[in-house]
Amino acid sequence: PNFDALAGRSQLGLAVPVRPGVTPGSGPAHLSLFGYDPLTFDVGRGVLSALGIGFDLHPEDVAARGNFCTLDENGLITDRRAGRIPTEISEKLVALLRDIQLPGIQAFAEPVKEYRLVVVLRPTAGQTLHGNIYDTDPQKTGVPSLPARAEDQASEATAELFDDWIAAAKEILKDHRPANSLNLRGFAKDPGLPKFPDIFGLKAGAIATYPMYRGVAKLVGMDVLPVGGETVEDEVDTLRTRWDEYDYFFFHVKKTDSAGEDGNFDLKAQIIEHVDEAVLPAILDLDPDVLIVTGDHSTPSILKSHSWHPVPTLLWSRYCLPDGIAEYGERACGRGSLGVFPATDELPLALGHALRLNKYGA
Amino acid sequence: PNFDALAGRSQLGLAVPVRPGVTPGSGPAHLSLFGYDPLTFDVGRGVLSALGIGFDLHPEDVAARGNFCTLDENGLITDRRAGRIPTEISEKLVALLRDIQLPGIQAFAEPVKEYRLVVVLRPTAGQTLHGNIYDTDPQKTGVPSLPARAEDQASEATAELFDDWIAAAKEILKDHRPANSLNLRGFAKDPGLPKFPDIFGLKAGAIATYPMYRGVAKLVGMDVLPVGGETVEDEVDTLRTRWDEYDYFFFHVKKTDSAGEDGNFDLKAQIIEHVDEAVLPAILDLDPDVLIVTGDHSTPSILKSHSWHPVPTLLWSRYCLPDGIAEYGERACGRGSLGVFPATDELPLALGHALRLNKYGA
Repeated sequence: PNFDALAGRSQLGLAVPVRPGVTPGSGPAHLSLFGYDPLTFDVGRGVLSALGIGFDLHPEDVAARGNFCTLDENGLITDRRAGRIPTEISEKLVALLRDIQLPGIQAFAEPVKEYRLVVVLRPTAGQTLHGNIYDTDPQKTGVPSLPARAEDQASEATAELFDDWIAAAKEILKDHRPANSLNLRGFAKDPGLPKFPDIFGLKAGAIATYPMYRGVAKLVGMDVLPVGGETVEDEVDTLRTRWDEYDYFFFHVKKTDSAGEDGNFDLKAQIIEHVDEAVLPAILDLDPDVLIVTGDHSTPSILKSHSWHPVPTLLWSRYCLPDGIAEYGERACGRGSLGVFPATDELPLALGHALRLNKYGA
Repeated sequence: PNFDALAGRSQLGLAVPVRPGVTPGSGPAHLSLFGYDPLTFDVGRGVLSALGIGFDLHPEDVAARGNFCTLDENGLITDRRAGRIPTEISEKLVALLRDIQLPGIQAFAEPVKEYRLVVVLRPTAGQTLHGNIYDTDPQKTGVPSLPARAEDQASEATAELFDDWIAAAKEILKDHRPANSLNLRGFAKDPGLPKFPDIFGLKAGAIATYPMYRGVAKLVGMDVLPVGGETVEDEVDTLRTRWDEYDYFFFHVKKTDSAGEDGNFDLKAQIIEHVDEAVLPAILDLDPDVLIVTGDHSTPSILKSHSWHPVPTLLWSRYCLPDGIAEYGERACGRGSLGVFPATDELPLALGHALRLNKYGA
């Protein structure tokens, strides 16, 4: 009822996260909401994975995604995912990999989920690492892993360091079949994005409980605010407490996405109903100038995954021209006056409605 | 009734073929439907004209559009269209032009309609021809024709060959007033477009009975499938027979456009009704993953020509979010959730709905 009532006073539309038909990962999709075209501002997969597990990535680090894999006696890959070993086994193996020493380098290994891990090299002796390195994963079985080859001259020394790390890792793993080897891919550094507060003139605070979203917010220069617990009520408490300190808040609700990924339509509906009751009135009580309700991407229960569908979006400000559609959802937003529009437009629209942009031209 | 029922289960919108307000020719408009921005992927007019008459253009050919014209005794143009001579006369004159011989060159001349023709030079001695040549048509009367001047050094030899051909043609035509001369324009080679199957990962079959559409489909690398006759029923037969061989079909209905060009609204409505009955149910029986019903451009009967109006478009897939508008037409599509969108988005949207695109980013 609260979302529907707000919709009646708002403008509605459907936001395209990346490009029509393209399903985004959470990283690029959030960049889009923050006003960065994810095709222009490319964040490497290794960096996104490191952010996704809450790793405190430094600008000088090179991060890579890893997969445990199975090799046969001839060193050929028989399973690129090591039989999808459970996370508990993966955690133990990763702990062993932390013993690997490299000269002038701090090497990190962190478990992700099942057979996946993150590997980060950090220079400690003043050298500069580079991340333009080809994947070692040949993307098929029956062949050996590839070496970590540099894509450019600057990355050659870093590629050698990763190769040394991989050699040491293989030695440690060799008796741990099915996870008797690993591959690395998506080598990347923090791309050094222009900072959100500088671009938009907004002191920005991020309120999110999951590492990925906190990580992306940090990547664009938002202050990631501590939240006392895991619930949306805890997030609302942070928002209330910090309200006067910031110009802009990114307030993230995770569980609608998780329910969609699980194909649990009823739970998703319940979570939306809970946010309707426990979050929306509390935000409105704080009297914002502009409020946008949207998602970074769709996660239809029927697909149990992210999707390309444009995202229902509601924009309220005292200067909006309400569509008079007192309903918030995909179909209602499909009739709204914002139309089908790039999600990167949301920030500029919010700034306009907040009277924070100068006139262009005389 | 079948289109309307399908519309009720689909998403609707209006597709912009090139840019707002711009009326496209059939060539660029089809490129757009195939996912190629026609402002980026420029196909020369000579090539489009050659395709339009079903000429088997080779990649090494240079094609030009020709107009018969009338010269006075001083060699000045008095009529750029030679009194719009009927096609039958044009055909006889073109037959005479086929006798022109050039060293190391096969020269083709083909009639189009009324005063228009197509001229194609094909190298036979291993040389490379180039198509950057200025029009010989000065676009006004009272002046002589221009020589075929090269726009760049590489095209100089080809321009000379065309000039030799034109000189021989003028000699042949000199006593055939009002068609006692001709001009050539739109010199062009096959632009070597990136191929549709490579870009989109779709084995693609084209079902169309008119040369222009078969030609554009061939230009982007689709298989142009034989059709047993001229009717839409013949086209449906081909679709049914070849259904299992392809990932994507371009299925073209010509006669709605022709009726629009003739200003025959009632006939156009009848053709749509016939397609509703004879084509749509047959396509749905084949159980496609995604079906888009659209046109390459509008051809309003009131204008008797192509127009800039965005094109009614219907997208159905099992993953679409139906707008619940059980009507297919300009006005209904103007209310749909696809909004007003570039026609080049249709292919990516279809790929998304067919679950054929990878996720972008983690």
